[in-house]
Amino acid sequence: MISERNETGEMAEYRDLAPTTMLAPIPAVLVSCRAEGGRPNALAVAWAGTVCSHPPMLSVSLKPERLSHGLIRESGEFVVNLVDAAHARALDYCGVRSGRDGDKLAACGLRAEPMPGLRLAPALADLPVQLGCTVRQVIPLGSHDLFLAEITGVRVREDLFDEDGSLHLERAGLIGYSHGVYQRAGGPIGFFGWSVARPDVLEKRMSRLRQG
Amino acid sequence: MISERNETGEMAEYRDLAPTTMLAPIPAVLVSCRAEGGRPNALAVAWAGTVCSHPPMLSVSLKPERLSHGLIRESGEFVVNLVDAAHARALDYCGVRSGRDGDKLAACGLRAEPMPGLRLAPALADLPVQLGCTVRQVIPLGSHDLFLAEITGVRVREDLFDEDGSLHLERAGLIGYSHGVYQRAGGPIGFFGWSVARPDVLEKRMSRLRQG
Repeated sequence: MISERNETGEMAEYRDLAPTTMLAPIPAVLVSCRAEGGRPNALAVAWAGTVCSHPPMLSVSLKPERLSHGLIRESGEFVVNLVDAAHARALDYCGVRSGRDGDKLAACGLRAEPMPGLRLAPALADLPVQLGCTVRQVIPLGSHDLFLAEITGVRVREDLFDEDGSLHLERAGLIGYSHGVYQRAGGPIGFFGWSVARPDVLEKRMSRLRQG
Repeated sequence: MISERNETGEMAEYRDLAPTTMLAPIPAVLVSCRAEGGRPNALAVAWAGTVCSHPPMLSVSLKPERLSHGLIRESGEFVVNLVDAAHARALDYCGVRSGRDGDKLAACGLRAEPMPGLRLAPALADLPVQLGCTVRQVIPLGSHDLFLAEITGVRVREDLFDEDGSLHLERAGLIGYSHGVYQRAGGPIGFFGWSVARPDVLEKRMSRLRQG
């Protein structure tokens, strides 16, 4: 336990822990994939992140012993399906059960549909956002292999768009993951740039966010 | 726009967008760093993710033109500070302003403190969690370079622990980022494994989560 103070006031106390993964909140997504001639499979992934804007890229980390690791390695494709509260139980189920033991999609009422632009990997119907991904590089790190993938297709559910065509992803009620706990996304606090926005821009955009 | 139906019921409609980054919610964190003999700097990062469990590793992606890119590249160190709602404005400010234009920490009332185990990179006082990181590999991807780092130190604010020593990160009110919008973490939905948990375990753990 470390306690520190300085001239400007009391500083919070901290407890030192052994090195461990604690980045949060992190995405809790369903990754879907399929082998040539095989049935669709899905697994829950929290070890995922956006890694590049141009080209648009994300990463997922998978244990080599997972069924999906081989499927994605072979096909070079997967779909990242963002998950809302309505699909939280399916997400968890796909995280603790293996496709080796049965058809996980059927077990939790998920349906596969073709993902435009991909040859094998299906998307999961009804989930808020489907990101088609093409693997560019696989980097072994230890317990997990890092799959770096380009986002080659994006499908967003119609109900997340305004009448004027603007997308309100904050209204999807997406799930985040914090140290073993799934949490619903809560109220919006601000938008990128809000701390330096002109008062009229701030008011307009915040009032729109609060409508969500 | 794509509309599909199958025998089992109506399927949601989707809109196809041009490929873009849309993984969500993603962490919105403050990354702090320092050059030899220089002043502490901090920048906001949303392109971050957990990439490996053993060893514990995370990644952050940085544009080569950012001041912090050079500082981290040279020092080989940084700290990922998780951000709660109380620090949301500071987070945004550090995302839109550059350390080249002035002392960002002073401008938004952030204080640096030494991070145990690191030589140069400071932690940011009062933030809920501080993760000390040592760079293992840098991979250029395009607009961003991917920094793969080992988590070599973890400090968690005392108020996030229970009397019995268990950590409740879900109580920190951490900020997530969804397509340009900062969102507070909302109510807990479940824990890893809840979909298959024994009824007694489920009840005990859920009641504890709801106390948060």
